[in-house]
Amino acid sequence: MIRKEVGIEQFVPPRALYQDIVRAALMEDVGHGDITTACTIDPEESTSAKIVAKEPGVLAGLFVAREAFLQMDPEARFPISIAEGTLFDKGSVLLEIRAGTNPILMAERVALNFLQRLCGIATLAQQYCRETEGTKCRVVGTRKTTPNMRILEKYAVRAGGCLNHRFSLSDGILIKDNHIAACGNITRAVQAARQNAPHGLKIEVEVTSQEEMKEAVAAGADAILLDNMDPAEIREALQAARQMAPSILVEASGGITLKNVRQFAETGVDILSSGELTHSFKSVDLSLKIKL
Amino acid sequence: MIRKEVGIEQFVPPRALYQDIVRAALMEDVGHGDITTACTIDPEESTSAKIVAKEPGVLAGLFVAREAFLQMDPEARFPISIAEGTLFDKGSVLLEIRAGTNPILMAERVALNFLQRLCGIATLAQQYCRETEGTKCRVVGTRKTTPNMRILEKYAVRAGGCLNHRFSLSDGILIKDNHIAACGNITRAVQAARQNAPHGLKIEVEVTSQEEMKEAVAAGADAILLDNMDPAEIREALQAARQMAPSILVEASGGITLKNVRQFAETGVDILSSGELTHSFKSVDLSLKIKL
Amino acid sequence: MIRKEVGIEQFVPPRALYQDIVRAALMEDVGHGDITTACTIDPEESTSAKIVAKEPGVLAGLFVAREAFLQMDPEARFPISIAEGTLFDKGSVLLEIRAGTNPILMAERVALNFLQRLCGIATLAQQYCRETEGTKCRVVGTRKTTPNMRILEKYAVRAGGCLNHRFSLSDGILIKDNHIAACGNITRAVQAARQNAPHGLKIEVEVTSQEEMKEAVAAGADAILLDNMDPAEIREALQAARQMAPSILVEASGGITLKNVRQFAETGVDILSSGELTHSFKSVDLSLKIKL
Amino acid sequence: MIRKEVGIEQFVPPRALYQDIVRAALMEDVGHGDITTACTIDPEESTSAKIVAKEPGVLAGLFVAREAFLQMDPEARFPISIAEGTLFDKGSVLLEIRAGTNPILMAERVALNFLQRLCGIATLAQQYCRETEGTKCRVVGTRKTTPNMRILEKYAVRAGGCLNHRFSLSDGILIKDNHIAACGNITRAVQAARQNAPHGLKIEVEVTSQEEMKEAVAAGADAILLDNMDPAEIREALQAARQMAPSILVEASGGITLKNVRQFAETGVDILSSGELTHSFKSVDLSLKIKL
Amino acid sequence: MIRKEVGIEQFVPPRALYQDIVRAALMEDVGHGDITTACTIDPEESTSAKIVAKEPGVLAGLFVAREAFLQMDPEARFPISIAEGTLFDKGSVLLEIRAGTNPILMAERVALNFLQRLCGIATLAQQYCRETEGTKCRVVGTRKTTPNMRILEKYAVRAGGCLNHRFSLSDGILIKDNHIAACGNITRAVQAARQNAPHGLKIEVEVTSQEEMKEAVAAGADAILLDNMDPAEIREALQAARQMAPSILVEASGGITLKNVRQFAETGVDILSSGELTHSFKSVDLSLKIKL
Amino acid sequence: MIRKEVGIEQFVPPRALYQDIVRAALMEDVGHGDITTACTIDPEESTSAKIVAKEPGVLAGLFVAREAFLQMDPEARFPISIAEGTLFDKGSVLLEIRAGTNPILMAERVALNFLQRLCGIATLAQQYCRETEGTKCRVVGTRKTTPNMRILEKYAVRAGGCLNHRFSLSDGILIKDNHIAACGNITRAVQAARQNAPHGLKIEVEVTSQEEMKEAVAAGADAILLDNMDPAEIREALQAARQMAPSILVEASGGITLKNVRQFAETGVDILSSGELTHSFKSVDLSLKIKL
Repeated sequence: MIRKEVGIEQFVPPRALYQDIVRAALMEDVGHGDITTACTIDPEESTSAKIVAKEPGVLAGLFVAREAFLQMDPEARFPISIAEGTLFDKGSVLLEIRAGTNPILMAERVALNFLQRLCGIATLAQQYCRETEGTKCRVVGTRKTTPNMRILEKYAVRAGGCLNHRFSLSDGILIKDNHIAACGNITRAVQAARQNAPHGLKIEVEVTSQEEMKEAVAAGADAILLDNMDPAEIREALQAARQMAPSILVEASGGITLKNVRQFAETGVDILSSGELTHSFKSVDLSLKIKL
Repeated sequence: MIRKEVGIEQFVPPRALYQDIVRAALMEDVGHGDITTACTIDPEESTSAKIVAKEPGVLAGLFVAREAFLQMDPEARFPISIAEGTLFDKGSVLLEIRAGTNPILMAERVALNFLQRLCGIATLAQQYCRETEGTKCRVVGTRKTTPNMRILEKYAVRAGGCLNHRFSLSDGILIKDNHIAACGNITRAVQAARQNAPHGLKIEVEVTSQEEMKEAVAAGADAILLDNMDPAEIREALQAARQMAPSILVEASGGITLKNVRQFAETGVDILSSGELTHSFKSVDLSLKIKL
Repeated sequence: MIRKEVGIEQFVPPRALYQDIVRAALMEDVGHGDITTACTIDPEESTSAKIVAKEPGVLAGLFVAREAFLQMDPEARFPISIAEGTLFDKGSVLLEIRAGTNPILMAERVALNFLQRLCGIATLAQQYCRETEGTKCRVVGTRKTTPNMRILEKYAVRAGGCLNHRFSLSDGILIKDNHIAACGNITRAVQAARQNAPHGLKIEVEVTSQEEMKEAVAAGADAILLDNMDPAEIREALQAARQMAPSILVEASGGITLKNVRQFAETGVDILSSGELTHSFKSVDLSLKIKL
Repeated sequence: MIRKEVGIEQFVPPRALYQDIVRAALMEDVGHGDITTACTIDPEESTSAKIVAKEPGVLAGLFVAREAFLQMDPEARFPISIAEGTLFDKGSVLLEIRAGTNPILMAERVALNFLQRLCGIATLAQQYCRETEGTKCRVVGTRKTTPNMRILEKYAVRAGGCLNHRFSLSDGILIKDNHIAACGNITRAVQAARQNAPHGLKIEVEVTSQEEMKEAVAAGADAILLDNMDPAEIREALQAARQMAPSILVEASGGITLKNVRQFAETGVDILSSGELTHSFKSVDLSLKIKL
Repeated sequence: MIRKEVGIEQFVPPRALYQDIVRAALMEDVGHGDITTACTIDPEESTSAKIVAKEPGVLAGLFVAREAFLQMDPEARFPISIAEGTLFDKGSVLLEIRAGTNPILMAERVALNFLQRLCGIATLAQQYCRETEGTKCRVVGTRKTTPNMRILEKYAVRAGGCLNHRFSLSDGILIKDNHIAACGNITRAVQAARQNAPHGLKIEVEVTSQEEMKEAVAAGADAILLDNMDPAEIREALQAARQMAPSILVEASGGITLKNVRQFAETGVDILSSGELTHSFKSVDLSLKIKL
Repeated sequence: MIRKEVGIEQFVPPRALYQDIVRAALMEDVGHGDITTACTIDPEESTSAKIVAKEPGVLAGLFVAREAFLQMDPEARFPISIAEGTLFDKGSVLLEIRAGTNPILMAERVALNFLQRLCGIATLAQQYCRETEGTKCRVVGTRKTTPNMRILEKYAVRAGGCLNHRFSLSDGILIKDNHIAACGNITRAVQAARQNAPHGLKIEVEVTSQEEMKEAVAAGADAILLDNMDPAEIREALQAARQMAPSILVEASGGITLKNVRQFAETGVDILSSGELTHSFKSVDLSLKIKL
């Protein structure tokens, strides 16, 4: 069997990981019932509707929108769906829904609220991707995600072509200034982590100077996060670090924007992390049209 | 007793309405434990920390940040807190926390993830407020909120000085095109709502033309939402509506941005609704500093 | 399309709003398992059963009974179901169930516990409806519902032909004595509400005297609740209120029973609210018979 | 240590068993916030309030009312509380609350909704108790309780002086007609239960004729439930049963009302079970008065 | 209809009682996603897999393993399943699964974690059963079960051929030393229970001496638990108890192991209770093999 | 500040991570109330109790026992507590509790059910530790934990002196036979993981032969898991692997028991993983004594 490249569809989370989020969002929006719809729509009526893009973007999270409609109408069908990660134009139909009119109207806002945000993140991620094209640097999303949306927002970052830093405090070791201060020095902190943490986790140390960087590499860190350095400082640190430990991973963060990301990427750093991807994206404008 | 003006603090939601959201967010971020902190920080150690603004903004949601620290350390104390709705500068201390070092580090990201978003919304809301100052028009937030964050985001809109449209599908009647189509015409839809809905809810009808507007007013709608009309069309509709029903409420929506909001507000419309307030705000940059 | 009158079936709540209530009730009754059934019934056996009325009543909530059987046996089928709102006689079959014997026995008590109560409420509501027939007054249910059953009990009130007051504290404004006292006077309270509440909610003020009524109307209240007035006082208040504000809604409450409701209705008041509908109804006697 | 008689306070359920019920009820009533109170009450204000009886009754469930206030204000205090099981008069103060005005208003309806129902059940139970005074018969409540309120309603039955039948399908064995039919005959059903059920549970058999009663006693049943027999039939069955098995427990059910319960009790039967206690009680009229 | 003997399949708990346990276990193991599988397995791929025994044992809980696979893939099918309670050999196939490769890999560990434990309990229970074969004594499991696994572990005890003592503190009365001390003496404790407890529960008293035993029997206990007595003491107590009350149930506990259980069983005691069945069993070694 | 060695107390999970597990376990055991205690114990009575070891062991999880008592009585105090990880003797007092008699009796079984298991795991872990003393090999626990107890069982493994492999499928990459087969070969699987997984996770490959081991090392795996090899095979693999990649981590698993673990440890392997630690431990015998 010849293996295809790993596609974004492999990273769609199992339904069990997002169905409760969707359910809670529906309850939040439906309240104790859609009073307008109850007064005006025959509960037996069914229809078809389309989610249409009102501006271009990158698709992420259509499965969440589908889940919203399915939770209100388990008989909902989706004759049209475009692929995750697709770059769509203004006017594109992202999803066609056939279901009860009532359930469509009750799920509409929730489906769009999820989808417009996830597409917003994926669209921004793709811009970062393009800006850094041709360099060997990867841009990754951070933990600066919307509370209780992390699994979806991390996915959207990936759908746009970026990757992700650790998901939570338990699946990555990142020794920061406070940990170092509490431990006494970098060397002790790295040793403590090496002796106590699960062996499958790399040890990354956040440093703010060339001196700290050297201590961290000497202590045996697997990765170094250069915090708030400008491209020139990064180049200097990078060269020194790789001389000491050729296989060490080097990440940079702080002050990176879509405008300057290429300068950072061209330093040769392995990874750039950006909080903006998930904390300050712009939603993509989408609307749902019912076929009257 | 002389009554003071109604302040934003009256709208801080009861703790029971947000403590589970905070709890879920902490669980999302802590995973099965903060492995870095466990390896490096003495669990008996306590410290003080500050949340500092890295850019100016409007404060909203400090109670959520406090809740995050309190859930990790019920003994946490907050010697400094600034008032909700305050306009703060770069460098301002928004909150001082005294608690266990370990709990502070575990709650840090969650507290900031909430706070930077809510301040972002309040900051944008205040800009809308200022743009419309001197007019009698109020800007209101819509249901285009982040899933499962509505209670907090609606609050942040208010903390910035705007108001809110209905919270969910059950606490407001808004008859839209699909409802009208299903009912046959506007008149029937308004009647159906009048006969069946709770008497405390006003009946609002979304219209896209002067004809629809007139039918809605004639049918006895309490409020009219002029959708996607430009300022000139709005003025025309407004005049006609008020002639027919002097006390009718008139709202406009569609295509309103911070740049053009004043033009819309000057039409004399009662209410302008903006989705941008909650779907495309920019987080305010905040950081937590531990006193080492 | 010609629109039919709005039927009770339009107000059946979405399944998502009651399935957890049913699930919790089943867990409450099943405990850690039905030990009698486990000892005596072959788990492969299936059967048919009927829910039969042992006295006349009005049907409400058959969907909840069906949900109970479906949760214990997703293959359950219901060859006979009568329509919501139907007036049934002693001996009527309300529902026929075909499912596993074991699941039927485990869901039986829960299905009946819901159904007998909801029919009890609908039956009482219909009596109120008939008593007020020919007047333009509507009887509405209050928030005096059984804890955690509100969505179903409010529905049952409607199935019997009455309507409902606000569902919760968040979807209606009702300014009472305590609010007035805290605000200083009625005028200030109405203004505070007008300036701060969502524009889709009417402002209702509870008053206990003609003076208070006048202050409330003058302050611009959209609706007035005359509390604990007798029919003569209500007539007086009504006349005065309508003179001041012809379109104002007037509601009365306090001391209304099935016996005297007509006298109150004939005052010309728009709305009468009754707590008895949900706090002191009598369950309708129903039984489940398995076809042996 | 001299042991006092077992009082009702020993049967107050542990808080862990009812706090979630109260919490859910508060969420149901508060919705996304009490909009009237937010517009009119200063959040810093505190006050005292009293729950007053508007008619006589028996107290049950004050701890649930207290829980509702405590959940909204953990600093709430209760300077006056009367004892569970007390017979109170019209005008009696059942509880005094000192807490924030805002939390009191938000918890008011929920506290009363619980308390008026539980007192209603206790009051009816006490009437059954009095009617059967002097006989050796105990009246017990059944599983015909309000869904998700069983733990509280069973308690209220006891607070009124009655006892309870099994709580759920897992803590009592009651072999009914369907079980017998499925097993082939009573003897086999009793044997199957004896061999398979936990040894701490008595085996009770529901019978509808003298013949069935005899088969059940002969099969070794520990208790017999005489279903739908009149007092004469019960006397006959009782005599025969006790001749066969002197220590057998005999229960009767079906058609028992407050009016005829004494006739049933005087048959000498050990236990009478009544569904009415929990499915058709009348709430006791209570109100909360804030000290203005 | 001729009734077959009661089989273990009658005691398989309803799905509603274990599906949340399985769901929580899957969430625990999947975390925020199976990163290895996401990187390497095509989400469209499906396969078949087998659960194979690596040592002999008694089957219990295959329904839980099936539930795990079904929750990850509702289309999962199980062409091979062996019957609950079966004694299987090393190499036996217990279950064949056809489902998506990805869901199989995500559910694998959870399915096995449940199944290997439940089979371990059933296997140990069967050994106790065999050791006591030919005596009239039943071995029962206690409440010393793994937290939050009781319903499954109690079932597994039964699948191995033993029975169970009470499930929880609410479905059995067992008066122990502390209760007796608090009540003053055994007689008062038995009376208090007789007067206050539901009539369907037998009253069992734990005693540690012949004197206590006699007091308990004289007080009217339905069952006696002889705690920490050796076989000779048990014989003595048994004889005396049966002389006083021929139909009394006698249970013994304390110090019973697989090695000495026969000696205890041969005393003629009705019931022996063993905590070891659920607190110190050895998991049966099982593995899942995917057909490559 | 001089840093002490990292102690087990640093790894006690935050309360938020185990309080729901304890709560669910209490609900499981209390059912709808402790009927025996209700009948016999004065709810106002308080007492002191001790948890005493009936055999030697290693302490783990006393915080969970405390949590159980605190949930039933928030005023519970613990005058005596021994340190986590302590080796205790028969007769040692592990915890003294002062609280209400009633809450102590209701929490007793749950507290012991947790504690006896966690001590059982820690005791076994310590035996593994001692057996491998003097070697540089660490023994780690696997994912073969009791469903829904992982966070506590992983902690207990550590309290006994061992470490842990990955916690869930999301915090470690372990490429197994099925992943390799699906990907085509080891090299492709390692590359896919390297390109797609978070950079903080090491890539470990499970191999069953020297050939596979070499392919994995050549592909750039960070760690190798030698599955089901005997000590001689392990030595051979180890030597070859370290020649190819001196810093590679080598783990072995399969067939390791307390008896033979030293032989495996002496091969020089870095890590040995054992499922027995959590799937087949023996509970430590503990009892709670109330001071009468």
